[in-house]
Amino acid sequence: MTKGKFIVLEGIDGSGLSTQAALLVPALAKRTGRKTLLTKEPTDGPAGLLIRQALSGRLREVDQPTLALLFAADRLDHLRNLILPALARREIVVCDRYLWSSRAYQGLECDAAWVDEINRFARQPDLTVFLRVRPAVSLARIAQSRPQAELFEKEETLRRVLAEFETLFAAGRAAGRKVAAVDGEAAPASVAAELERLALAALAEN
Amino acid sequence: MTKGKFIVLEGIDGSGLSTQAALLVPALAKRTGRKTLLTKEPTDGPAGLLIRQALSGRLREVDQPTLALLFAADRLDHLRNLILPALARREIVVCDRYLWSSRAYQGLECDAAWVDEINRFARQPDLTVFLRVRPAVSLARIAQSRPQAELFEKEETLRRVLAEFETLFAAGRAAGRKVAAVDGEAAPASVAAELERLALAALAEN
Repeated sequence: MTKGKFIVLEGIDGSGLSTQAALLVPALAKRTGRKTLLTKEPTDGPAGLLIRQALSGRLREVDQPTLALLFAADRLDHLRNLILPALARREIVVCDRYLWSSRAYQGLECDAAWVDEINRFARQPDLTVFLRVRPAVSLARIAQSRPQAELFEKEETLRRVLAEFETLFAAGRAAGRKVAAVDGEAAPASVAAELERLALAALAEN
Repeated sequence: MTKGKFIVLEGIDGSGLSTQAALLVPALAKRTGRKTLLTKEPTDGPAGLLIRQALSGRLREVDQPTLALLFAADRLDHLRNLILPALARREIVVCDRYLWSSRAYQGLECDAAWVDEINRFARQPDLTVFLRVRPAVSLARIAQSRPQAELFEKEETLRRVLAEFETLFAAGRAAGRKVAAVDGEAAPASVAAELERLALAALAEN
């Protein structure tokens, strides 16, 4: 019997996550005929809205452990109210950012084991794809598309975040999890084709 | 040199926490001449407002681990933006509910060790006073004062919450922490006198 499938895209700011997620969802729906849901974190739910306000600087004086807890709360809310019901209906869910982003970003100032612990109840994805892009490239993209930089959008910060994504990718592979890395600096259409290939391979495994 | 002092009142719903906190603060200010701050959890901050909406049923589909994470986030926000600055100014802070309430209420459905872990960065109080009231008594008080019952306001639930407060009180005493229990069913003026005595004793220890 067909099962729901939970596919996550991860990467630093400006690595093309939302563009690629937006391309992947209709491509998968077309190729499989299955209902395919696009979603992201932070969500538009109650805790997600607080996080967005904090990241944009609208909500001040929020430190990293607080933000990490809000992300963990937003994630459980996301799972309960959107992801798990969709998977139970055997749909495909494509999520732009998930657990690795918490580790890579909140892990900059919080203990990694603590970040894992507060996320203990979050279901693991069926496939995590890491879009690998160098910070200089991602920042150049961001500069072209947004009027104001967000909290983490500095080259030195993104360099550390990228290093953590590499660590998570290597650890996931070593642990036999379904993870993949894609060259996010390639042409968007070629990145999209590679993501589609990876996602279809994961779907074929049911 | 005088230090700030962080005093917490804990107990089940309807045990008189807000009444007694409201009596204690001006009494301490008068007796000591020190600035004394009244505060409570959940707070009126961004995460606290979400929690209040969830407790009142306005915000639906929030499960207990999510609520526990929101309480932990609200607490760090509370510490950073209100409690710690006040203590640094050597003030007295009286807080209506704190860590024990998370353990007693969210611990109903979440693993206690996990609740402790997500609250790892929360400063311990200098004195925690437990207002001991039986659920039947507290529910009769609530029925007189509020139009609608909140999430936890059922006798069987409050019985379990009370048992957890007793456990936390016993464990705190065994660990040599500054904790006390007061008979919350006594006349309000007599409870207030006892709280004032305990607080002044804690303040004298600087």
